[in-house]
Amino acid sequence: MRRTITLTTDFGLQDAYVASMKAVIWSVSPECRIVDVTHLVPPQDIASCAYVLTSMFEYFVRDSIHVAVVDPGVGTDRRPIAIETSSGVFVGPDNGTFTGVLDRQGVVDLSSGRLVNTLAVELDRREFWRSEISSTFHGRDIFASVAGHLAQGVGIDRVGSPIDRVSVLNGWQARVDDGTIYGAIVHVDRFGNAISNIAAEAIPSPPIVEIAGCRLVGLSENFQSSELMAIVGSSGFVEIAARNGSAAKLLGIETGTRVTVREAL
Amino acid sequence: MRRTITLTTDFGLQDAYVASMKAVIWSVSPECRIVDVTHLVPPQDIASCAYVLTSMFEYFVRDSIHVAVVDPGVGTDRRPIAIETSSGVFVGPDNGTFTGVLDRQGVVDLSSGRLVNTLAVELDRREFWRSEISSTFHGRDIFASVAGHLAQGVGIDRVGSPIDRVSVLNGWQARVDDGTIYGAIVHVDRFGNAISNIAAEAIPSPPIVEIAGCRLVGLSENFQSSELMAIVGSSGFVEIAARNGSAAKLLGIETGTRVTVREAL
Amino acid sequence: MRRTITLTTDFGLQDAYVASMKAVIWSVSPECRIVDVTHLVPPQDIASCAYVLTSMFEYFVRDSIHVAVVDPGVGTDRRPIAIETSSGVFVGPDNGTFTGVLDRQGVVDLSSGRLVNTLAVELDRREFWRSEISSTFHGRDIFASVAGHLAQGVGIDRVGSPIDRVSVLNGWQARVDDGTIYGAIVHVDRFGNAISNIAAEAIPSPPIVEIAGCRLVGLSENFQSSELMAIVGSSGFVEIAARNGSAAKLLGIETGTRVTVREAL
Repeated sequence: MRRTITLTTDFGLQDAYVASMKAVIWSVSPECRIVDVTHLVPPQDIASCAYVLTSMFEYFVRDSIHVAVVDPGVGTDRRPIAIETSSGVFVGPDNGTFTGVLDRQGVVDLSSGRLVNTLAVELDRREFWRSEISSTFHGRDIFASVAGHLAQGVGIDRVGSPIDRVSVLNGWQARVDDGTIYGAIVHVDRFGNAISNIAAEAIPSPPIVEIAGCRLVGLSENFQSSELMAIVGSSGFVEIAARNGSAAKLLGIETGTRVTVREAL
Repeated sequence: MRRTITLTTDFGLQDAYVASMKAVIWSVSPECRIVDVTHLVPPQDIASCAYVLTSMFEYFVRDSIHVAVVDPGVGTDRRPIAIETSSGVFVGPDNGTFTGVLDRQGVVDLSSGRLVNTLAVELDRREFWRSEISSTFHGRDIFASVAGHLAQGVGIDRVGSPIDRVSVLNGWQARVDDGTIYGAIVHVDRFGNAISNIAAEAIPSPPIVEIAGCRLVGLSENFQSSELMAIVGSSGFVEIAARNGSAAKLLGIETGTRVTVREAL
Repeated sequence: MRRTITLTTDFGLQDAYVASMKAVIWSVSPECRIVDVTHLVPPQDIASCAYVLTSMFEYFVRDSIHVAVVDPGVGTDRRPIAIETSSGVFVGPDNGTFTGVLDRQGVVDLSSGRLVNTLAVELDRREFWRSEISSTFHGRDIFASVAGHLAQGVGIDRVGSPIDRVSVLNGWQARVDDGTIYGAIVHVDRFGNAISNIAAEAIPSPPIVEIAGCRLVGLSENFQSSELMAIVGSSGFVEIAARNGSAAKLLGIETGTRVTVREAL
């Protein structure tokens, strides 16, 4: 069976960066399948990348290799890493990108970054890199090449040295205090739906959702049911949406905007 | 032979929605080929989606499966459908998306939506859906899954119950009155070319084309032949173009702008 | 082994143009691999297309077929061509698009366009085109179809008549005068990095780089080392970058902005 490699980056679509990565992957693993997740992560926005990864990895077959490169620290001493979980292998810079996918699988302690029952390595075996390494494009020269070798069946233990903790993002999880959930918007999608880090299963019923000076009572069933609404999005998080419009624009919401949920009395 | 599935949506390119659809398709049909047509249909613009589909389906092999999801009514009672024609199978919400492809093949009565010699079904067999159905993302949970099963050779009659009419868009076809053709712009492309719903074979020779207060006499042969021109576009419709510029910007044309064609006397 | 065809165009991502090209390619060569390089070349910007091609072709396997269609002269008498080099076959309009890839391989005289030890043809064998040819979309009707046949193993000598020179862009190479290198910005990438046509191996050490009234001394090692910097980019050219920001915006740089490099004394 040929392996699947997904690509999530902030490289954009106007340059040849992504095509170069694919060329390198296929030069190592000619038959693997490469899937673009997105290349429009806002430049250097690691948290947005973390959300995008979290929203999609569970739909892929479990031996997929997920490469994520939002890498403002490329060429500095931030580590290149790979992490093997029961839902796939994750490859990219060690800068918090994988906070969400690890948290969702319950294999990381968010306060320390310590991994639980999970094999991770620092990619330090240069024989699996391209022979020439630029200082500005490890996506092509390290991560694509290593992913290709993994797709060819090379074990994660062979491409690097074991590590037991990774970088995690601060404030990834919503916080509960005295019955109120304090969260934040982690992503605004193309429709202007503002997606929070508050999981649907954590909220009371019926909920009051407050954001940007606006109070929404109850959850909507679909995008037509109200002008402005809180709704459980397709990744299982509470999101704020508008009927046939952009909730983010209407309310001036952006990534980082605070949102709270408590029980309607 | 592996089947081809095309995807046309308004999901944009900054989120993981499209990748999730692909993951679901391949989980059902691991070897099918998936082709992105576009994911930048303007949000909720069903007519634009209908044009894009019309402009491309004839170039694909005839057993292709075309999935189109511009679906503002997701989660309401609008029906999910599939339609089998001699040029492929079409899968998506029943909201008029397929007006153009059906009209081009002459298999729909545009006044009633009644289908002629064409098998269509409402997708109501949940065994071909994902096991968990969100209320906001039927593209992933219903349409992608059903398309995967169709690609595996499941007959359209097995994935739903027969229907004999579908939703169609009002005003899809240009209207002829007293020798003048009354049409509208249905799509503006990346170059600012404004594409009408007036078919090349329907127009008189030489034609006078009037749009946005501007009168163009005759048809140009190529994009260099005039500052501003009417020309037969690559899908066979009359379009308005500018040499090395955007006709839409120059004339303030947008989707819905009226255009008329009559014979130059 | 199945062949790879890459696509580089200015067709954008909101229309079905690219999907139509792919459909035509696969109708001729059902098993070839098609890779999108970019479809967001600025409309009609041949020089930007030339840079993008130059930055990526060397990473692909050497029997790849690179189709590039930025073609403002479509339908006029500009020639459709194919060029076979030791690094792949290049297919597109003869308008200078291939200046960079030919120069990088040392197979063209930039003053005359004369090719050296390289087989090139004008695509004039209509049996390898689509049967119907539009006047506005040779990307689909000629280039995609010919590329499909090449992928099927048809020799370049069969799809056209030999030519010995091609169009080249003026001012492609930086000029050296009295120890100073005079170059220009050829591309601004998604991050706002401004990429010049000055090759890293040509510059003195340490260099002084001057652009837009700004003087940068020395080369940075990575994108974190300075607020504003000159750095050797991943394609081997000098580029101007800003830490976590857009150098192009900061300095008002765009394609064509002049840049000089000389030795720091």
